[in-house]
Parts: sequence; C-alpha cells; structure tokens
Amino acid sequence: MNYFSSDFKLGILGGGQLGKMLLSDTRKLDIQTYVLDPSDEAPSRMACNKFFKGDLMDFETVYQFGKMVDVLTIEIELVNLDALEKLENEGLRVFPSSKTLKAIQNKGKQKDFYVENGIPTSKHLRFVDLSDLKKALENDELEFPFVWKCAEFGYDGNGVKIVRSTLDLIHLPDVECIAEDMVPFKNELAVIVCRSPSGEIKTYPVVEMEFHPEANQVEYVICPARIEDAVAAKARAIALNVSEKFNHVGLLAVEMFQTQDDQILVNEVAPRPHNSGHYSIEASYTSQFENHIRAVLNLPLGSTDSKAAGIMVNLVGADGFSGNVIYENITTILGWNGVTPHIYGKKQTRPFRKMGHVTIVNQDIKEARRIAEDVKNTIRVIA
Amino acid sequence: MNYFSSDFKLGILGGGQLGKMLLSDTRKLDIQTYVLDPSDEAPSRMACNKFFKGDLMDFETVYQFGKMVDVLTIEIELVNLDALEKLENEGLRVFPSSKTLKAIQNKGKQKDFYVENGIPTSKHLRFVDLSDLKKALENDELEFPFVWKCAEFGYDGNGVKIVRSTLDLIHLPDVECIAEDMVPFKNELAVIVCRSPSGEIKTYPVVEMEFHPEANQVEYVICPARIEDAVAAKARAIALNVSEKFNHVGLLAVEMFQTQDDQILVNEVAPRPHNSGHYSIEASYTSQFENHIRAVLNLPLGSTDSKAAGIMVNLVGADGFSGNVIYENITTILGWNGVTPHIYGKKQTRPFRKMGHVTIVNQDIKEARRIAEDVKNTIRVIA
Repeated sequence: MNYFSSDFKLGILGGGQLGKMLLSDTRKLDIQTYVLDPSDEAPSRMACNKFFKGDLMDFETVYQFGKMVDVLTIEIELVNLDALEKLENEGLRVFPSSKTLKAIQNKGKQKDFYVENGIPTSKHLRFVDLSDLKKALENDELEFPFVWKCAEFGYDGNGVKIVRSTLDLIHLPDVECIAEDMVPFKNELAVIVCRSPSGEIKTYPVVEMEFHPEANQVEYVICPARIEDAVAAKARAIALNVSEKFNHVGLLAVEMFQTQDDQILVNEVAPRPHNSGHYSIEASYTSQFENHIRAVLNLPLGSTDSKAAGIMVNLVGADGFSGNVIYENITTILGWNGVTPHIYGKKQTRPFRKMGHVTIVNQDIKEARRIAEDVKNTIRVIA
Repeated sequence: MNYFSSDFKLGILGGGQLGKMLLSDTRKLDIQTYVLDPSDEAPSRMACNKFFKGDLMDFETVYQFGKMVDVLTIEIELVNLDALEKLENEGLRVFPSSKTLKAIQNKGKQKDFYVENGIPTSKHLRFVDLSDLKKALENDELEFPFVWKCAEFGYDGNGVKIVRSTLDLIHLPDVECIAEDMVPFKNELAVIVCRSPSGEIKTYPVVEMEFHPEANQVEYVICPARIEDAVAAKARAIALNVSEKFNHVGLLAVEMFQTQDDQILVNEVAPRPHNSGHYSIEASYTSQFENHIRAVLNLPLGSTDSKAAGIMVNLVGADGFSGNVIYENITTILGWNGVTPHIYGKKQTRPFRKMGHVTIVNQDIKEARRIAEDVKNTIRVIA
C-alpha cells in the first residue's frame, strides 16, 4: 500500500494535543489524515486534511467517520467501541482494536486482565457502585487506606482518590469503581511500547515520573529513569509482555510502580501516545508519534534509542488564573540551551489545564534536571 | 509582544517545502501564520492559519498581503522588493529587509558586495548581457574556462554553467550575467548563520556538500564537515562576518569553497532556510527552521550544536519518470536506525524535481555515511 502523497486516508479519533503532535509527523511523511473531534477549537483542527466535528461517543458519528478512511486510530481512548467493532467486522483496519480497547477502557476489567495473565499488579477489588464498596468496608473485605478509582472515564488524575477514612468517602461519586492496595513505591515509572500488526515490537527506555502533589498531574518526566539497569530491564520486559498479552497495536504507555524491594507492579496503561513520551520528540531517534503512525500502518518501527537525555515539564494553567492565556517568561527559557516549548494552542487557560510542555535535552542528565527545575520555576501559565 | 496562542500574525512569502517545514515549528509554538504562494498545491497550504494564492513578484499582491500581518518573512528570495520597501517605510517589520535582499538578489551585486567588504571570494566580472560578455572574451579581458551565472532568478543549479570554450556559449541565454574564476576546490562547505534584529548571532557547524554530477543538486549534506578544526573555525568566522556585513536578519546560508591551500572563498548566500540545514531537524538541539522563527521574532536563539552526526540525502525525481509519485523502497529504509524521510507533498514527480529528503542520524559519522549511501542506493522517486 502506498501511504505517501497518495489517496490513502488515516482517520484519527480525537483532535487534542496528542493528535496535533501526530499530525506533525503525518505532514512530514505527507500521509493524508481525517480527524474527528467534538470541539471547534481542537488543536488538531489545523494540519489535518479534513476536520469533522462530532461526538466521539456517538455510534453513528464514529461509524460514518470510519467509513471514509482506510485505517482508523485514536488519540483518546474514550470513543464508541461498538462503532469500531462494526467497522472491523466490515473489514476496516482499526488500531488499537475494539477488543483491546474494551479490555482497557474499564479499569476493573483492566485489573482483572493483569491477574488473569500473570502480570504483576497491586491487589484490587471491583464494585458496581459506591454502596457496594461501603458494604465491603462494613464486612471487613476492604480496609483503609486504599486507592479508589472510578472504573470508566477517568483521566489525568481525575477519578482517582486516596481513601484513608470514612470521611474521604463523602465526596466520592456513586459510580462503578475499584479499590486498590496502596503501594509504598520508590519510583513511578513508565515504558512506552510500540507494536505493529505484524508483531514487530519495541520499547522506549524506562522513564521516571514526578507528580504535582495537588493536581496529580505529571510534573517531570525523566528519560532515562535514574534506576539500576536490572530494574529497567525488568520494567521493559513486563511492558513488552503487557502489550503482547493485550495484542495491542500502536503505542501502549505502561505506567508502573517500583516497590521498595524493586518489584515492578503495573499500575495502568494508556493505549495511545502518552504524556510520558513527549520527551521523545527531541530526545529519541524516532518520536513516539512517528512510531505510532509507523505501527498502525504496519511500517517498520524506528529506533526508540535516545540521542541525549530528555526531561519534560508539563505546562499547566497556574492556580487562580482563567482566561486568555499568557506564557509568562517564555522568552527567558527560550534563551537556555536545549529548551523547546510546545504550545498546544488552547486560547483559554484554567487552573491545572494542560496547555503545553517543555522539553529539556542535554547529554548530561544532571544538567538537564537542573535546567528543568529552572524552567519549572520560571515559566508560568497565566491569564 | 505575545506571539503564542495570540492574535499576532507572522506572514511568510512563499509556500514551498521550506515554508512547510517552518510551519511545523510555528504549529509547535502556536504562532499564527499567513502564507502567500502562487500555487494551489503549495506544500505550505496546510498547517498555516490562512493561505493566499498570489504572485510573489507582483507589487500589489505582496503589499496587500504584508498589510495583514505583524511581521513578514520569506522562504524564497524571489519576491517583489519594492513592496517590501514600502511596507518597511510604513512601519512593518520585514526580515530579511528589502535592502539586504537587494544586495543578494542580483548575483553581480552580491559579488561586488563581497569585494567591497573584504570578504574572500573568487574573482568575477559583470556583464549586462551575453554580447557584453562575448566582447570581453574578444578583448582578452575574460579567458576560458570560467563559471557563467545568470545575475537573477537562478536556483538549484539552474542559471549556472561551466564555460570551457566558444561552443559552450551557444546555449547561454542573453541575460545579465557574471563570469567567475573556476575554483579548484577541495570541498564545498556551507555555514548557516542565524541573526536576530537585536544582533544576537549564532552559526551552525560547518557542513560538507556533495553534488549530483548531472543535476547540479546537492546529493549529501554531511554535518559536521570532515575537515580540520582550524578550517572549520575560519569558515564559521567568515560566515558570521558575511551575515553582519549584510545586516541580515533570520537565516543566511553561506556556501563556500575550501581551496587546495585551505583558503575559504564565499561562493554565494541564500537569505532563508536552506537545503544544507535540513539535517538540523533531527540532529541539532534547535532546527534551522525554529531558529529562523526565533530570529525574525527577536526571540533568543536556540543552541545550534548537534545531538549527533547528521547526513541528508535529497530525494529528487529519478530521470525518465514523470507523473504521480511513488517512493520506491521507502519501507526498506524506514527499517534502518536513525533514518527519517521527509516527503514534501508534491503529487507529481519530474526528473530531478526536489520531492523530499532523508535524514540519517547516528553518533558515529562513518556509520551515518554508510547508511546514507545505502539510502541513496535503495529509495527511488518514480512514477
């Protein structure tokens, strides 16, 4: 199949910043793209060949969009899976598949999947609703503290809460949920796996994540993680296994805990390009976005090795500011070596809204980490 | 001035592949762009905020376009300079300036400029037309062999010819021209200089060029050039001087000869992003395109250092093929480490038409050079 400067059409469900960064590589390779997103102001609206406004959870909208393209992929997993399944049955190549997405979309099912497939993960219990969870507490089947997660539609730390006592239960919504053991971890790690329909598979190096204590959003992603080689090798092997067990195609970001005794426990996965891989645009021989495109088109995968150490700082809206965005002191950080801002193109900022990120690349990871901290302390997303 | 996610508009004259690659970085920084190009199928048509179809040499078209933007730059130097001058007089920031472009656009004036400013260059004579040149030959003011160049509107080796005897004169057009001494050079080198209105200035490393013997188009660009440090330092110093003497703003590609006795002679300049800097997208901390944008917006310049060795192979249409383009064996080269194709998005190929390029990045320049040759011998642009 000729993908380049041809009539071939790649469909992308979702038009957020992940889609925008994907389009940078479809433009580079001159692959035609159609994008579906509910927002008129989607960051992907520009640089795709055709933009369609529509609800990603609506069967008919997704189905009709799929009928116009030759391969269908996603940049967000919250899409109508019945439509994907019907499209697959009618012969469309959909990556990742509806079956894989079904196993991932519900966090309860996702955890069950790890248990069934012998993938190390923290202990969990599933509940159909909040009263079901409360019953388990009364019956001593569940103990404080635990990590509560809503089973569906959580993202970026929304839908996750540490529950330490009955008081914390008050503000939980009455939805299907899971309770997980709290893991006293040394590090939060992630490995991005890239896999093509032919089964070719590669992992990016292990990255280390630091979270913002309030917003529960990633603050630094550090590549490579400053961990022992043996631990890194174990993490990559587990991530490979997760991708293969899911029969996943495209990018799969596997988030993991490194426990105090250097066990690796899978936390959760994202079946698409991921925040923890943004550093790869500048630091890797082939970015996660290009490799996602290569994978879903069954092209050979590019090298996932790094040219230099890479650190990513998220640019989230500062607390207390809403309105037309201003990137305070961006000029200052542009003057520093190896610093590249990415501005997603959202006109309006809100507290903790993801507005962009900054990548810091350096041959010396300690120097990169120092500059990253300066970046974080200098640039501010205000209104 | 707030450039990011704002109402600010950067105007770009020309919408070819250089403009397309510029847009990749304006998208990354969410800077609004307006593009003017005569072709409906301009590679920059997508990914700019507004596209205008129009003649770049037409005064009124360029002037009216300029009235709509806040800063105006170019990706091709063949534009109406009177319109730029009028816009400047009315207060628009135009980079590079009409004055700088005037000194560069005519190759005769450009050569005179080097002589007047003590910049080393080969000897030249200027002629108003072909009969003027023939008269000089008759009067023994000019001797065979020499390099003939048309004074205006040449590009990519068009408008350049080595003249060895009277026979070679037959096919020369009757236009204003120059005759240059032939330089028996060791290497053809280039240095890209980046300079902002505030006077901040940086040079990229010296690159080495190999030309296709027939098409007179660059075949390999190798960064860094495999030359002695002292020669490289001299080349960068001369390039810096050229940019400052022209009072140039934005990117200036300075093409040079390294003579047998290691002198550096300036051949010619291009006042914009340049083929010899394409490697920088993958190999440099900051690509030439991002630095062009930073320069014309008077933002701090990014590091011009390299993360790894970079080699670029041009993808030009194979001789004997015209029509809908096919990139033969592109899948094969995608399987090799550090190989990134860029497809410009021209639907139709023609012999020697620039259709794209491939960058090869590797920590080891010898390995990069080996892979580059494999790339050149494998991929073919056919119809």
